[in-house]
Amino acid sequence: MSTRMVEVRAKVMKQNDLLAHSLRERFQQHHTCVVGLVSSPGSGKTAFLEKILTRLSQDHKVAALVGDLATENDAARLQRATPNVKQITTGTICHLDASMVEKALEDWHVGAIDFLFIENVGNLVCPSSYDLGEELRFVLLSATEGEDKPLKYPNIFNSSDVAILTKMDMAAAAEFDLSVVRRNIESVRPGMKIFEVSSKTGLGMEEVISFLCAQLEHSRQPISEK
Amino acid sequence: MSTRMVEVRAKVMKQNDLLAHSLRERFQQHHTCVVGLVSSPGSGKTAFLEKILTRLSQDHKVAALVGDLATENDAARLQRATPNVKQITTGTICHLDASMVEKALEDWHVGAIDFLFIENVGNLVCPSSYDLGEELRFVLLSATEGEDKPLKYPNIFNSSDVAILTKMDMAAAAEFDLSVVRRNIESVRPGMKIFEVSSKTGLGMEEVISFLCAQLEHSRQPISEK
Repeated sequence: MSTRMVEVRAKVMKQNDLLAHSLRERFQQHHTCVVGLVSSPGSGKTAFLEKILTRLSQDHKVAALVGDLATENDAARLQRATPNVKQITTGTICHLDASMVEKALEDWHVGAIDFLFIENVGNLVCPSSYDLGEELRFVLLSATEGEDKPLKYPNIFNSSDVAILTKMDMAAAAEFDLSVVRRNIESVRPGMKIFEVSSKTGLGMEEVISFLCAQLEHSRQPISEK
Repeated sequence: MSTRMVEVRAKVMKQNDLLAHSLRERFQQHHTCVVGLVSSPGSGKTAFLEKILTRLSQDHKVAALVGDLATENDAARLQRATPNVKQITTGTICHLDASMVEKALEDWHVGAIDFLFIENVGNLVCPSSYDLGEELRFVLLSATEGEDKPLKYPNIFNSSDVAILTKMDMAAAAEFDLSVVRRNIESVRPGMKIFEVSSKTGLGMEEVISFLCAQLEHSRQPISEK
């Protein structure tokens, strides 16, 4: 990249960080648990999110923003789980940024939402640089993608809090070596929490739900008890 | 993106296009068939390329450049097929550009290479904007990623010449609907050539080899016979 481009990019990133910071404060004031989802294209973000929204909506108010370059297909899929879904269509832009999130929330009352999920554009590189104000970021990695991805895309694992290994029903067919992927994740992000799930069989989904509910509880405690 | 960033980006892209154009002329003068490979992370670019290099190296001089943010693992894998492999490590940059290719070729004699493959960073978005001077671009899509990717990432399909459907041995397990993916490719890139392959079983690899050899023959014909 040219020096000029690096300079302009640094300025844009700074603006994004400031806006993400103010979004995060707003979410915290309203005790809304906000979770970002990042992964490669085709790792199963939307299938995972549909299951999570369906299950959480039994007892909570849920909503989702979903980013894609083109099409509104994902929003249509997620609307089977909850009507509170908005598609953000980015055109040629390879990631969501905080201003897109702020704009999408304009006509929603954040205080009425318990869980807000933000599904990023499928991309293991660029979304790592853009804070969206979320409380937690999940990076999804499917069993069919290979164990080496944490080593090859370290920034996205470093910018995330939790790793979700998806499509575990296909792990045997894909010869996916769990001990290797766990070691690779541990080497780039020591102590990272890892869930193994399958949206198809339901494997591991209750563990994720319990984790999310505990997170919401925690965010609602008075600061003195935390 | 800010107006300023768009302007600077346009200038960088212009420089890239000029350099890619001069690379393409150089490749054509030497009758070197240059093929770019783009896909999501984990679509099987390296496994596919290892098979192709092994097979082509029986009768041709082959070489490969391989891009990743971090690690030299892919180059090590490809060196099992040919010693002529260089890793381009991009750091935080989400795509290869023409200047990286030019620099990597500095101490290679292009005229001695029949087939040069350039494996991009795993990313279905950003590489679509950067011409690398290749004669052909292959976009790989694995059977486990879902049929909707051409609709959701139209630019990368539009900037490519050939679609390679990989991991076809897993198509049944992934419930991959070939008629749907073919229709989706056709809708964003009418007439696009499509190969179905499996690096594991060898399915479809000979068809790709024949196609590449025909391409090389064609590039060696005097212009008057084309």
